[in-house]
Amino acid sequence: MSETLFDKIIRREIPADIVHEDEHVLGFRDINPQAPVHVLFIPKKPIATLNDLEHADMLLAGRLMKAAADFAKREGFDEAGYRVVMNTNRDGGQSVYHIHLHLLAGRQMTWPPG
Amino acid sequence: MSETLFDKIIRREIPADIVHEDEHVLGFRDINPQAPVHVLFIPKKPIATLNDLEHADMLLAGRLMKAAADFAKREGFDEAGYRVVMNTNRDGGQSVYHIHLHLLAGRQMTWPPG
Repeated sequence: MSETLFDKIIRREIPADIVHEDEHVLGFRDINPQAPVHVLFIPKKPIATLNDLEHADMLLAGRLMKAAADFAKREGFDEAGYRVVMNTNRDGGQSVYHIHLHLLAGRQMTWPPG
Repeated sequence: MSETLFDKIIRREIPADIVHEDEHVLGFRDINPQAPVHVLFIPKKPIATLNDLEHADMLLAGRLMKAAADFAKREGFDEAGYRVVMNTNRDGGQSVYHIHLHLLAGRQMTWPPG
């Protein structure tokens, strides 16, 4: 797969407001926030879309969810609540072809989810 | 935690349009669909919210994502695309306190995601 913006963020070649980093996952604020809190959690391993998630990557997908929940606790909005979203391809509205879990919080999220 | 509707669906005590089942995960259509395709993927193990996901449950969270992607492939809308969403507590708009990953497809999803 071709390299994306996110690989450059992982390597600190372009700046980002990083809020979480561990061995497997990086979390940083979305530059076009859609809620008072809007963070992206990405695997350091480049996976283009959720369609490309292999069986061996399932734990990694779960790590994104857990990183989002841990961030919510750390920031104190876990009880108020939040939404996590992942977009795949055109109909999903995927913008960068490196999977990313959106975490949105700080306001009442509405339904449908887009 | 108290039992929810979803436990009854897992035990087949109330009907649901089930589209996926394996050892860990059940997938069934949302009764109030927000897109031409709207399926919920739930762990058979009851976990109330994403806040309650323990470290040992990370793989299970990943299984929900993988089950959604596999369903997209099986149904042939993986390339067109789809969105997955999980809501937590009030601000997220969580309705049933047994975690569920919404899969929405069959139309262009919009931004913001609610």
